[in-house]
Amino acid sequence: MKIREFTEAQLINFLHDEFAAASPEVTLGIGDDTAVIHQDDGYWLLTKDLLLENVHFRLAFHPPFLLGRKSLNVNISDIAAMGGRPAWALLGLGIPKKVNLAWLKEFLAGFKAAAREAGVELVGGDLSRSSHLFISVSLIGETKSPVFRAGAKPGEFIYVSGALGEAALGWQLLKKGHRLGETPELENCLQRFLDPTPQLSLAQELVTHDFVSAMIDLSDGLAEDIRHLCQASKCGAEIWSDKVPLSPCLKRWAARPMKLALHGGEDYQLLFTIKQARERSFLAWLNKSRYQLHRVGQIIKEKEVFLLRQGGRRQVLNPQGFRHFG
Amino acid sequence: MKIREFTEAQLINFLHDEFAAASPEVTLGIGDDTAVIHQDDGYWLLTKDLLLENVHFRLAFHPPFLLGRKSLNVNISDIAAMGGRPAWALLGLGIPKKVNLAWLKEFLAGFKAAAREAGVELVGGDLSRSSHLFISVSLIGETKSPVFRAGAKPGEFIYVSGALGEAALGWQLLKKGHRLGETPELENCLQRFLDPTPQLSLAQELVTHDFVSAMIDLSDGLAEDIRHLCQASKCGAEIWSDKVPLSPCLKRWAARPMKLALHGGEDYQLLFTIKQARERSFLAWLNKSRYQLHRVGQIIKEKEVFLLRQGGRRQVLNPQGFRHFG
Repeated sequence: MKIREFTEAQLINFLHDEFAAASPEVTLGIGDDTAVIHQDDGYWLLTKDLLLENVHFRLAFHPPFLLGRKSLNVNISDIAAMGGRPAWALLGLGIPKKVNLAWLKEFLAGFKAAAREAGVELVGGDLSRSSHLFISVSLIGETKSPVFRAGAKPGEFIYVSGALGEAALGWQLLKKGHRLGETPELENCLQRFLDPTPQLSLAQELVTHDFVSAMIDLSDGLAEDIRHLCQASKCGAEIWSDKVPLSPCLKRWAARPMKLALHGGEDYQLLFTIKQARERSFLAWLNKSRYQLHRVGQIIKEKEVFLLRQGGRRQVLNPQGFRHFG
Repeated sequence: MKIREFTEAQLINFLHDEFAAASPEVTLGIGDDTAVIHQDDGYWLLTKDLLLENVHFRLAFHPPFLLGRKSLNVNISDIAAMGGRPAWALLGLGIPKKVNLAWLKEFLAGFKAAAREAGVELVGGDLSRSSHLFISVSLIGETKSPVFRAGAKPGEFIYVSGALGEAALGWQLLKKGHRLGETPELENCLQRFLDPTPQLSLAQELVTHDFVSAMIDLSDGLAEDIRHLCQASKCGAEIWSDKVPLSPCLKRWAARPMKLALHGGEDYQLLFTIKQARERSFLAWLNKSRYQLHRVGQIIKEKEVFLLRQGGRRQVLNPQGFRHFG
């Protein structure tokens, strides 16, 4: 059997079975946004994300500064989704000959900008020659009280932190030849893919106020990530199609906006559920806050994820493949 | 300027300047075997090593079980060289289509074997499609008292933990078509490259007894690694050519055994200096121990590394290029 005949999820399950956590300190090993390791007075969060040339990015259209920033920011997004504070990073770079020093300096400047903004320090790494550019970032964070994917309960409302699908549209537009700085009305979508913003401060506020019961970052798309959250929480969900936030850019330029919003991936928004006992305080806080959050559905007992169409038609919402492991 | 026009050392210096440690907790950032971060009652050690297809290994002759084991063991070697205990690992894999599930299971079994032997737990990672196989392992360890490259003092003797150059010869032989299990007298050298053993228990004994002033693992070759140690310690060294340990296999099969022993790399033996006040206790301990250590030279004040030939001729010992960044 070749790798393409099984999915990333199957592989992760296989890894999970092979490496079931044995130590009492490991609160959570493989299978959430980060690993969680219990320490004396808190938790370490460990995560690693790969970015590969021609899989996750193309050198031809990813400005090096933005690629450096994205390399760290996608990891920061994982730490944020666990309610953590990112702290230490390791950077692994496989560098092909076509990359020159000016490019590399820009890449590192971008990495550094993201690090400075989030209070992260690059403490080590490894470099190698490579046929293609590849980037492997490991990030370690800390928290007093991690927020898991598991924890959502029937009746709780589901929120997302921003418009969905723009990053996926950006990736499509870039592959079609559109570039940053050419078409003002496309700029937003291209930016979302090239330079995603992790929702770190929002995540920390939500956790500080003890609003959330479960959280995940939207890297694989709403349809897949809500499924991850529901599987971990042993419940299901109804997503209300008319509440899924679509940006003007997406509605104007995407052939099928809702499809991208549900299945696009790489939005790096947060998906979370609000504790029912905290709902009222949450709404009061939200009213006064600078955040625009979107209530997109509700957790249900039945262990299935449904999309509720306008008019009331309910259909099972299945993930549509795996972008980087298809 | 293209990457090939500068060396890994220059790149690391550039990274070091760009990311100088700012936080008081970072005892040591980029530039030793691992990063060292001060915690309440000890230190975390963070390291990351990349293994890339056709750069560090070839699928055609690296049995997957041994490659899995090596992927973790080269990282364990870094933690060992800091006097640490390895604890948590993250595994990043870029998987090409030519790799099948049986291969991957063997790889993971090897990784797991190394993990079990060293008390390491795999807690997370990332998977992706890739054009070539690449492996990125991050490892986190702990120690109460880290041993740095800096710390060697003039007059101290320099030791290595085993014969040198065999791994480099193994790599040459493999590229020439020799394979494991074919020629008994080559077996040792091939094994050293395909399945290196990190010197974890030796390192822990040396540290427990407070014998060593400075330590590094031999990944780049004696000539280069003694230079790293001397630069960090602001001193120099004399290496005695007749004391550099050469295995029978190396002497029998290498065209220039001494060249491989000095410059070969990937031996993953330890290189360390013994505190003068602890020399006598060290020798008494060594006599009774199961280890065969080799005294190969002495630290000197002059900031240069020399090779002392038989007959007394002294020459500067320069590193000869960078295997994975040439």
